[in-house]
Amino acid sequence: MSKKEFQNLFLDQLRDVYDAENQITKALPKMIETATSPDLKKALESHLEETFHQIERLDRIFSVLKEKPTGKKCAAMQGIIAEGKEILSSKEFSDLVKDAAIISAAQTVEHYEIARYGTLKTFAKEFGLDEIAELLDETLTEEGNADKKLTKIAEGGLFAAGINQKALKK
Amino acid sequence: MSKKEFQNLFLDQLRDVYDAENQITKALPKMIETATSPDLKKALESHLEETFHQIERLDRIFSVLKEKPTGKKCAAMQGIIAEGKEILSSKEFSDLVKDAAIISAAQTVEHYEIARYGTLKTFAKEFGLDEIAELLDETLTEEGNADKKLTKIAEGGLFAAGINQKALKK
Repeated sequence: MSKKEFQNLFLDQLRDVYDAENQITKALPKMIETATSPDLKKALESHLEETFHQIERLDRIFSVLKEKPTGKKCAAMQGIIAEGKEILSSKEFSDLVKDAAIISAAQTVEHYEIARYGTLKTFAKEFGLDEIAELLDETLTEEGNADKKLTKIAEGGLFAAGINQKALKK
Repeated sequence: MSKKEFQNLFLDQLRDVYDAENQITKALPKMIETATSPDLKKALESHLEETFHQIERLDRIFSVLKEKPTGKKCAAMQGIIAEGKEILSSKEFSDLVKDAAIISAAQTVEHYEIARYGTLKTFAKEFGLDEIAELLDETLTEEGNADKKLTKIAEGGLFAAGINQKALKK
């Protein structure tokens, strides 16, 4: 009985992140289009590609569980994306500041996913669902790397001077 | 000019996290009340206390910046909390499964804050606002520790068998 309940919670969160990933595939192109830093553009493009693979991984997980791959509206991701959109559409900010805002929004997205995939992986391990735990771990590693790459871009590791400092010097 | 823009972005995100923290102080008591694991209850209680200190830190930051300490509706945190509430009010789940769901919701909250405070700290450093960067870093460390504590509770470090495994054995 409790095992069934746990599986329901697991499925509930799987559907949440499935919807979140699908929202991300729709939001990223606009962020890529708006980004002016070539390094940032490239990082987002590569993350968009990764996101499609992550959705495929979720499809495989649903298939292992013999469950329909359906999403469940993720209100948190809607909120995160809405906040990002608001800044991108603002006329108040220059391109370089928008780049910084894009990094900030993208990192919030990454951390939402890190939290969700982290929990899902813990649950899968507790269930003894090793194949699923492994798939989730692959995605978790990718999300962590994407987050670190964005920090490097913001702090200047991939730039001569860094986005933030560049904006300040203008 | 760009510096002003950057400051606006910084303030915008500061107001976002100020509202998020205030939402958390309202949501945590219900989570504490619902949690059945004493370790989880204690961890959430101590995080509620921490949250009040984090709000005080934000007040200090606003004061250093000579800005009014006002929040700006954080849609992302509203979404995260709404998702958590939905599970807590569900009759479908037993107490132990709810504990796992509370951990999951709380970790999502932590990661939202880790992302936001991380960006804010990077911005503060770029502005040369060392005092503010230090205050943000104190909070960032606390959020990271709170997240790790919750992982330990979920994985069983603080329990004889761990919440998840206990639920499975029932």
